[in-house]
Amino acid sequence: MSDSPVSGPAVLVAPISAAALAEVRFDAQGLIPAIAQDAVTNEILMVAWMDRDALLRTLSTGRACYYSRSRRSAWMKGESSGHLQILREIRIDCDGDVVLMKVDQLGGIACHTGRRNCFYRKLENGDWVNQFEPVKSEAEIYGER
Amino acid sequence: MSDSPVSGPAVLVAPISAAALAEVRFDAQGLIPAIAQDAVTNEILMVAWMDRDALLRTLSTGRACYYSRSRRSAWMKGESSGHLQILREIRIDCDGDVVLMKVDQLGGIACHTGRRNCFYRKLENGDWVNQFEPVKSEAEIYGER
Repeated sequence: MSDSPVSGPAVLVAPISAAALAEVRFDAQGLIPAIAQDAVTNEILMVAWMDRDALLRTLSTGRACYYSRSRRSAWMKGESSGHLQILREIRIDCDGDVVLMKVDQLGGIACHTGRRNCFYRKLENGDWVNQFEPVKSEAEIYGER
Repeated sequence: MSDSPVSGPAVLVAPISAAALAEVRFDAQGLIPAIAQDAVTNEILMVAWMDRDALLRTLSTGRACYYSRSRRSAWMKGESSGHLQILREIRIDCDGDVVLMKVDQLGGIACHTGRRNCFYRKLENGDWVNQFEPVKSEAEIYGER
């Protein structure tokens, strides 16, 4: 793990009341989908899951943290790649069962494939067609594995 | 149900190959989260769920269709309110487990509360604070119930 130093505007470390936390509706598995949206361009960067701890860690650190269903553990986005997501604001929807974060995406890369966001496959003439290429290769980001 | 007539640009009716459909990863309940994003402003309008039939109905009608987990049935967004979502493009993410639609939101109202989108509650000083008010009341949209 290499936590890159963060430059730029001050990090938002957001408190949450017990009442507000109780309005967040985690599902039967204790999870809620969380969208990361670029704070400047409104581009949707990625969607992942949070458990209660990941949400609280996001709010206390000001960096997006998620819960990996496959690895069954929490992770801070960018903890390996340096591509941290700095929290600018956080919202929930009308039903309280989706989280929306506006973030500054460090390195301009949100996707583990090295692309700027995860939604690069668009339906065209019946097939999913890549709309843009990686900014960096996975080997460049994570090293040879 | 009052299906409002649709004006404006032609509806996209999107075919999908069997191979492309097989790349869409529905969860153990047969569902996938779907984001509706305003095609012009990139504002996130709402997030709901699709099953396979809702996805195919979305593609064949060119209007966003979802699956209601509480009612256990498919629905076309706007079938009661007239606030249809006209599909402009559809993407999936790197893992194939999230759908992103860019849509034209008829009536400028996506949320069942009458607001333009569902993400009107922002965390401020520890509590969720409404950022904007309904364009119309629920009674105006759905009639007195």
